[in-house]
This record gives sequence, C-alpha cells and structure tokens, in this order.
Amino acid sequence: MDYEYVYGVQPVLQVLSVQKRKAIKLFIHRSDFSPDLKKILQLAQNQKIPFEEKDKFTLSQMVDSPQHQGVVLKTEKFSYHPFENLLYELSKDSNGLVLALDQIQDPQNLGAILRTAACANVKGIILPEKGSALVTPSVLKVSAGAAESIPITVVTNLARALDQLKEIPMWVYGAEAESDLCYYEQDYPAKTVLVLGSEGFGLRSLIKKKCDFLISIPLSGKITSLNVSVATGILCFEILRQCHQK
Amino acid sequence: MDYEYVYGVQPVLQVLSVQKRKAIKLFIHRSDFSPDLKKILQLAQNQKIPFEEKDKFTLSQMVDSPQHQGVVLKTEKFSYHPFENLLYELSKDSNGLVLALDQIQDPQNLGAILRTAACANVKGIILPEKGSALVTPSVLKVSAGAAESIPITVVTNLARALDQLKEIPMWVYGAEAESDLCYYEQDYPAKTVLVLGSEGFGLRSLIKKKCDFLISIPLSGKITSLNVSVATGILCFEILRQCHQK
Repeated sequence: MDYEYVYGVQPVLQVLSVQKRKAIKLFIHRSDFSPDLKKILQLAQNQKIPFEEKDKFTLSQMVDSPQHQGVVLKTEKFSYHPFENLLYELSKDSNGLVLALDQIQDPQNLGAILRTAACANVKGIILPEKGSALVTPSVLKVSAGAAESIPITVVTNLARALDQLKEIPMWVYGAEAESDLCYYEQDYPAKTVLVLGSEGFGLRSLIKKKCDFLISIPLSGKITSLNVSVATGILCFEILRQCHQK
Repeated sequence: MDYEYVYGVQPVLQVLSVQKRKAIKLFIHRSDFSPDLKKILQLAQNQKIPFEEKDKFTLSQMVDSPQHQGVVLKTEKFSYHPFENLLYELSKDSNGLVLALDQIQDPQNLGAILRTAACANVKGIILPEKGSALVTPSVLKVSAGAAESIPITVVTNLARALDQLKEIPMWVYGAEAESDLCYYEQDYPAKTVLVLGSEGFGLRSLIKKKCDFLISIPLSGKITSLNVSVATGILCFEILRQCHQK
C-alpha cells in the first residue's frame, strides 16, 4: 500500500475525524502534550491505531520539516475525488460554489486556498493534472487539515471540465486583473464556478475563453496584484455575502 | 550607519522607486536578467548607486535565503513612521482605513497583510512593539515590496494608540470570531480602524475592550478559522466595497 506521513495537530485531527483514508500508525512526542493531542490519542485509540513515542528530531526527519508539532500519522496516500462524482453531486444540488485553480504552483498558496474554501463551504476544488501544486502533507498542513474534508478533483483537461460544469448548468467566473467588470457589481447565480489563475501569469488564454465572465478586484496603490489566496478569499466571501443577503 | 540587505525583484524595485531610505549598493546575478532587473539597473544608475555582480550562492549567503531572484540591495534599515505623524495625517483626511495588528507573529502573515493593505489603499499600519513580527527584509519580500510604500508605525501601547485614534474621531472595529455582529451587516464610517488579533489567540482582552464594535466573518464547515491575512483581505475589501457603493 502506498502511504505518506501527515503531520501537525490540525491535519492529523482532520484525517482521524473525517476518516476518508486509512490511518496506519501514530507517532507522537509526549512532551508536546496539549488538549488537541489528547483528542488525537483518544481518536487513535477508538480506531485501534497503534502509536509509538518518538523524539522531535526523529519526527522532523520522518516528515522533512520541523513543523510537526509533535504529531505524525502514517496514512494511506491522499485520494482525490472523481470528477464525475463531483459533477453528479453538483447537478443534484440547488446551489454550490466550486473553485477551479488554473496552475497554482506554490504549495503555500494552495494550502491557504483550501483552508479558505473549507471555511466558505466550497463544494469542490478542481486542479489540472499538469502545472499545479497537488495535495501533499505540507499543503495539508498549511490548509490546517482542510484538504481532508473538501472534495478535491484532478482533471487532465481543465478547459473541458469547465465545459462540463457549464452544462449542469453552472456559471463560470474567471478572475482577471485586466477585466473592467468589478467583482462586487456582479449578481452571482446560486451555482457558480470561480476560476483563479497562477501566481505569475493569471489565467491561460484557453481557460479565459471558457469563462462566462471575467471579473476583477479594483486595486489602488503601488502594488498591482493581490496574493492569489487573499484574492480567492475576497471573491468567495463576496459570493457568500450576496447569497446570504438575497 | 545601520544597514540591511533587501532582496527580491519587487522589494528592490519598491525601495528604489519610493526612495524613503538610502540605497548603498546593488548586487546582482546577471544570468537572471529580466525586464524588471533592467528597470532596477536603470533606477540604480540614475541614483548613482554602485553595483557589483555576484554568483547566486553568495547572494543566498548574504540574505540567508535562496529567494533573492538574483538581486540584493544594501540599504539603510527600514524606518517606521512616527505615530504622531500618522495621527496628524488621519485627522486632516476626510476618510481613511487603518489597520492595527495585535501581535501578529508570523512574518509570512505580516508580509501578506502588508501586500493586501497596499492594494486596499490602507493609510497606515500600527504594530505593538512587543510580541509582534516587525518589518524585516523577509517580510518585505513576502509583501512584494508593499511595506516600503505604506506608513507603518510601532507603538509601545496599542490600547492607548486606539484611544488616540478614537479621539480623531475614528471608529474602531475588532475582528473577533465569537462576535454575533456579521462583518457585512455593518455600515462602516469613512474613517475606520480595523484591529486584527494574533494567529493563535485573537485579540487580547484589553484591546477587545477598546473596540467600538467586534465583528466576525460567518464560517461554515469543519475548519473554524481563516488565516489572518485572508481575513484581513475579506474585511478590508468589504469596507472598500461599501465606501465605493455609497
């Protein structure tokens, strides 16, 4: 079986709570004892997962990072949600916000976006197979474990996936700094796909063409672009605000 | 003279464009040549700043990071804006958004907040002297150079600073997850101070008491908190949206 080492309090808590993938063995450093670690041990005990004590240095070596907070979990590899299942679920739902990320490359940004998405009740995340950061244990750590509870799908052809979402029907909004359409002046439908481009280059031209609307966040000052995870937060929560205030 | 090494394309561009602090010497790695690097060399030449070529490894050693993108600038240390000056400027202005950051500790978060603040035309940032990340070259890097163009002040007593801002008068809104006041249901005045708490603990109780209103961002899902830099983006841009739509 393929396995990986998930690390950090929140990621391990989420893996053990969500139970989407099999946990194999827990490794902890006792002196980092906290209420959360107690909860983790309780969950592991209930699920009959063996555990072993390790020193901090050994844990750091296991996960190639000092950010483990005294807890590491050997688990099955992260499994992505089949795109067909996501399509089916979205077609059954009367509303839903989906994020399509066009080649986000920085694991820090992907993790931050996943955390925001979980807080915004996003129904699914779509990543292209090529040119995108994927869900590694370090992305799971940055996401505070959020990657565990959102359906994340990987597609070979993002443009085609957008076409399929439009057939549901859903409306596709792409974030594009050059657009004249201000993000808060749009009236977002109940079923919206939000597409964000990569850190350096934004949306690829084919992806841009697939969008029903291209929207921008008006900025002032000498800095001409927001971090992509901050932009995602601003757009998702504007869509939620409109949805709640309707 | 105290000096430091600013690194990365955007930070160096901003230091040379804003000219708030004296640049002493430029170090570059030629093979990383780009239009931005050309702009940097042009600015350095116009300002008669000497430059020297270095290999990548030497640059990494100078700044203790591989993130220099082939450009390092020896400059005067970052200088903070006097709080009294900020108070005066705010009292003269008919509108303005100010951020007070109550012990943000992660340089990554501080940098991301500064970048967002610059994009949102924030008039000033207030940091407490104790318990807060300050503006280092690595924070400047994460901020994409934004720290150079926003007045950033450091105060010994943040609670007292909030009192002084209230006397201008400005209204103080604190972000507090437990609050029942939803952030988008507030009618923000033209002169607003937004207070954000630290990553682990939120606002300190004394700071909370100084706020005129405590507001929250309603979240759903299994993850119970947003990253502080994302939360800052959502709140700042909601205030801007209201301001533009009035």
